[in-house]
Order: sequence, then C-alpha cells, then structure tokens
Amino acid sequence: MKTKPKLICPICGAEYNGPVQRCECGEPVEFEPFKGEPYLGKTVWERFYDFWPVEPELELSLGEGDTPLVRSKLGKELGVKLYLKNETVNPTWSFKDRGTFLAMSYALKADYKAVGTVSTGNMAASVSAYASRFGLNAKILVSEKTGDEKLRAVSVYGADVIRVKGDYGRLYFDSLKLGERLGVYFINSDNPFRVEGYKGIAFEIAEEVTPDYVLIPTSSGGLFRGIAKGFLELRESGLIEELPVLVAVQAEGCSPICRAFKEGKGRLERFENPKTIAQAIANPYPPSGNAVLRLLREFGWPCVSVGDEEIIGAQRELAGEGLFVEPASATGMAALEKLGESGVIPEGSKVVSILTGSGLKALSHVEGGKIVECPIDELENCLR
Amino acid sequence: MKTKPKLICPICGAEYNGPVQRCECGEPVEFEPFKGEPYLGKTVWERFYDFWPVEPELELSLGEGDTPLVRSKLGKELGVKLYLKNETVNPTWSFKDRGTFLAMSYALKADYKAVGTVSTGNMAASVSAYASRFGLNAKILVSEKTGDEKLRAVSVYGADVIRVKGDYGRLYFDSLKLGERLGVYFINSDNPFRVEGYKGIAFEIAEEVTPDYVLIPTSSGGLFRGIAKGFLELRESGLIEELPVLVAVQAEGCSPICRAFKEGKGRLERFENPKTIAQAIANPYPPSGNAVLRLLREFGWPCVSVGDEEIIGAQRELAGEGLFVEPASATGMAALEKLGESGVIPEGSKVVSILTGSGLKALSHVEGGKIVECPIDELENCLR
Repeated sequence: MKTKPKLICPICGAEYNGPVQRCECGEPVEFEPFKGEPYLGKTVWERFYDFWPVEPELELSLGEGDTPLVRSKLGKELGVKLYLKNETVNPTWSFKDRGTFLAMSYALKADYKAVGTVSTGNMAASVSAYASRFGLNAKILVSEKTGDEKLRAVSVYGADVIRVKGDYGRLYFDSLKLGERLGVYFINSDNPFRVEGYKGIAFEIAEEVTPDYVLIPTSSGGLFRGIAKGFLELRESGLIEELPVLVAVQAEGCSPICRAFKEGKGRLERFENPKTIAQAIANPYPPSGNAVLRLLREFGWPCVSVGDEEIIGAQRELAGEGLFVEPASATGMAALEKLGESGVIPEGSKVVSILTGSGLKALSHVEGGKIVECPIDELENCLR
Repeated sequence: MKTKPKLICPICGAEYNGPVQRCECGEPVEFEPFKGEPYLGKTVWERFYDFWPVEPELELSLGEGDTPLVRSKLGKELGVKLYLKNETVNPTWSFKDRGTFLAMSYALKADYKAVGTVSTGNMAASVSAYASRFGLNAKILVSEKTGDEKLRAVSVYGADVIRVKGDYGRLYFDSLKLGERLGVYFINSDNPFRVEGYKGIAFEIAEEVTPDYVLIPTSSGGLFRGIAKGFLELRESGLIEELPVLVAVQAEGCSPICRAFKEGKGRLERFENPKTIAQAIANPYPPSGNAVLRLLREFGWPCVSVGDEEIIGAQRELAGEGLFVEPASATGMAALEKLGESGVIPEGSKVVSILTGSGLKALSHVEGGKIVECPIDELENCLR
C-alpha cells in the first residue's frame, strides 16, 4: 500500500496533507516529488509503481498508456530525428485517459459516489467512460454553446451531461467548491492526480529514447506540468542524466501563456476573444498557466505559438505519415518547423512531439480530399 | 530473411508459388501453416517473428497490434469470465491495421508503386493511412452511395478516392484483375497477407489467457480466418494444447454465412436486401464465406446472428464498461447473451469478444443521452 504523500503549492510553497486541489493562494497544488526505480511489468502503472500517489486500480484499467512512439521522416528536412508519441490510441482516443484513470482510482478509494468535470471535448469523454467503468456517477458540465452532435460521444457512456447557461470561465472554480460541498469529486484539467497520470508519457519516452526536445501542446497546463514532473522525477531518481528541453506550444489565436512569457509577466491574464482551429487547447485562462510560466522560467524552456494555417499544414503532413490527429495535436509539428528553421532546435537533435488526440474527434474541421467519380466500365482508365 | 512460403487453396487444395490472391477455383488462397516459437520482444511482430509470411517493415510500423485485453464484468450475470480484445486502439482505430501493415510490407518489397482497396469504412482509412506512410499511391474504390462526410477520414491521408458508379459487388473481383494488369496491389478484405496479420490477435490473446470461446464479428470472413489460423498454428507449434471454440457472429439483417450454415449448404448465396445497423459487417456476398463455412464444419464451431435491437443494447452495455465501439463490434457481446442464456456457452467459461472498431467511426448512429439545461446560478441544484 502507498503511504499518503503531501501536496505542495509550486508557486507559494504551502503544504497540505488533505486532498485539496487548489492552494489558498489560488494556484494548483501538486504532489511532492517521488523517487523510485523501475520494475519489469506489462503496463506503465506496474513498471513505474513507485511514482504514483495512489494505488492504480489495475483491475479496472482500460489499457490506457503504453502508447507507441512512432518514428517519423518529417524531421529529415530539418536534420532532426523526430518521434511521434501517439496518444490517440488511448481507450477514449486522447491522453486524458492516463490522468482520468489515476484520479478515478483515488475517487474510488476515497469512497466518492460521483465524479465530475468541466469540459466539452476529450476530457468529458474520458471522465464519462471511466466513471461508468468504475461504477461512479458522472456530472459533465459543458458550455451552452456545445452542440448535441459533439456531446454524443460523451453521453453514450451514460454520464449526466449538464449544459450550463452563464459564464463558462467561472465553472472550473465553481465546480471545485460545489463538488466539495456535495461530495462530487471534480477531475478538472489540472487535478493533482491527473497531472501525475501524465508523468507516464515522460516515463515511456525515456524507456525508448533520450530526447533533446519534447513538444507539448499546452492549454490548461496540466499535460505540460505532468510531463515536466515525470522527467524531473526520473532525473532525481538517477534514471536519466539530463532533462530534455520541454517546449510549451500554443495556438496563436489563444496563447495566454506564451504572451505572458514574452512580456516577462509573472502572472498571466485572460486571453480575450480566443479564436483558433485547435479547439482542444483553446483555454483563454489556463488554471495551471502560472505554474507553467514558472517552469519555463526556471529551466529556460521556450513557449512557441503557431497560426491556424501552420496547424492545418502540419495536420496534413502528419496524416501523410499515417497519423490523423486533431488540430491541437498538430501544433507540436508546426512548432518544430518554426524552431528548426530559426535554428533554435539544432540539426542532429532528437525531438519528440506529443500527439494528444484523434482526428476523428474534430472530423468536421477537416478539408476533404478530391473524390473522382468513375463509371464501373471505365474503371481501368480511372485507375491509371 | 524469410523464405518464400507457398499459398494453398483451403477449399480445393491447389498450391501456388506466385503471389496470387484467389485460386483458379474462385476461392481465396492462404499461406501454408507456419510453425515456430515465441521470442522476447516489444511488439507482436517481433515476438511471433516465425509466423509471418513476409518480413514486417518495423521501421514503418505505426504501432498496430499489441492491443489491451480488458477484463469485463458483463459476463458476471451469465457466470462466464469475459475479456474484451480492444482493437479500437489501433493507429486508424480498427483491427484492419494489422493486416494492412503486413500486406503493405509485402507490396513495398515486391516493388509496387500503388496499392488499392475496395471499402468505404475501416479498411479504406487503414489502407490510405499505411499507403501514405509507406510512400505508395493508394486507390480507394468506394460505392456511389458513400457520402462525402464519411470519406473525409479516408481522403485526409492523401489517397485517391474513386467513387464507382455501377455494381459495387463486382468490384472485389474486378479490382484484383485490373490491379494485376496495371501493377496496383489490391489489399481487399481477405487478401492473404491481411489474413496473416490478423493471426496476431490470436497470439496476443494466448499470451494472456486460455479462452474457451472467442466471439468474432464476421463479414468478409478475413478476420475469422486469420484468428482461426493463428490458434491452429499455436496448437501445431505446441504452444497451446486445445483450440478455443471460435464463434462466427453476424448481423441478422446480413447473415449469409449463418444462413448457409444452418441450411447445411456447402456454398453460400448472396444475401439479398441486406439491412443492419452494423454497417462494418454488412457484406452480402463475403469473399471468404465458403472458407469460413468449411472451418465451422470442420471444427464444429457455431455461427450466431443477432438483431439490431440486441446490437444497440450491447453497444450501450459496452459503453457502460468504458468502451465505445461501432455497432459491428457489439455483435459479439449480443451473441454472448444469446449463447449464455441458451446454455451453449456454459457457466465458468472463459470468453473473449473482439471489439473491431471505434464508435467514433459511426457516431451518427448513436442515440444521444439526456442533456440537462442549467442556469449557472442553479448549478448546486442541478448537481444534486
């Protein structure tokens, strides 16, 4: 059995023993660093057992994690070795499942009967699926703008989908408070267990390659913090020698973290009128934004924003490698082109780009290719 | 390097050394049985290296195969131990990728410049993706009824999509002939390499459990033949003692194999006016139908058909386990209920059901759940 680890605020340093999600200073808390050694095992949960804050409920696992690291020839032109970490083959087809599984393992042990989340996309589907799997009720709060079509892939798992009229931006904080009062455990974007679950991405990468750069699509900041914590713990445990450079990648049309970073601000401000095709990373006021800013400054890591045109181009290039991803997942590749051309990422580097979610999730955004009409008797000509 | 294995017709016994796809008698040929031993390795391609008819192009792999075997509580009521083989987490989100990868490895070595397939669904996406990955042109022949929306997930990979006007049923055979003439390697539903690729499902299952029954959604028959060949080769190699009972599962609205089986016919007939929600297995004249019939008869295996109502119910139950599958994938679970209740599958049995493809592929068929509207100031009440 795991002993109960402490929670620490990465901004003000306050410590907590209870199961809080945010520090009194307003920032997200995180588990103290773990040290350990790897074991033999089929799943990332077993191999890196020492590094989880809660015993993973392996009997209820859906096989999240242990995703392929795919070699790509797309780095060739830039002279870099590119690897694509394909998170689209998780049980609900996005990286969210890693964090959801770990948070759900906690919720079950803590005897919650209901869980919730604030999301309209990947996280909503993930929490719905695992809640159902774990036998818990799920309350999914979505914005009033979300169409029925998009919600089908969420409600199919049997969750209570609640379309909230009013300021959607408030919901992240409101839901945590209400959840505490009502006994509903809200697993929002940067929930501490969720962040821990994402460490598995770093662990699996380190098992296969020693990257110089890792490109991370960044919205709430939960994924970035998780991967960073994973590499840091590997280094502290003596399992890797040097940290890779982690690159926070945002869409230009919604880049509050990159903007604050460039302007040298310590705290970020809400990004007004966000507009980007990369819907899955379009959070105008990321709850882990300040924590990510701090990491970027501490380690000298870059923040890069890319435009919709570049994103669409990169999505097409990735499809040419056989990997159809949602626009948010293509931002890493778009950033690589920018960083490679400007010399920030030098030739010969080993680069990993995180592909966060399946292209099937945002099919309506995809430009269809040309379709040729052909009478069957002329098939031979059409095939030439 | 692999030596060149022979191809054999499972119906008339004729043997071929060249790369034919169909026997002169009209039936599909298959590779002679392989024997071997398993090795240590990360991928199914490495661990079962002895069993493939062609050297897999591992550098070009997208990480197909090695899918999770998920424990399910859905067998509880029937007193069976149920495992779900989740093929929805393959690179294009269906089992087709296993066969496509192996066939593509052959096409590359045989120096083809173009490949093709006849499909509107999972196989079309899979062949498009891998052709692009392997640097080959792809010709995807779809029926004139296929909508643009559905083809987006295919054309995104850069394939030439050709909408053929005329008798779609003829295309399977026409394409093989034309392909031979034009140097386009057609990887249709029961291409011999494709069938070999599906053996991996049997191999991976056998690594984890010793099943008494395996439930297999059956359309063209390629998947069924592949899994059967896999278990047979494991037995011949002394790696398992007994074969599981393989259950061919079809949708009632398009069940040519089950019908011929029940009527005691040696050859199947075209199923007129097929109509089922399980689109992915709605082939009215399966090219491997007679070969499947022969396997069922030889080993005394059952063929079970299930209705659309049962399929939809099973799809909902699987979603309740956190696994959202396309209707075709739910047929196995629907068949289990039928076979369990009627006592054909006895209590205490270990059963594996194959989940062939992602629910995101047929999202428009899914009945959405209830969505509650809630003003933000009443959120507390809505959450109770």
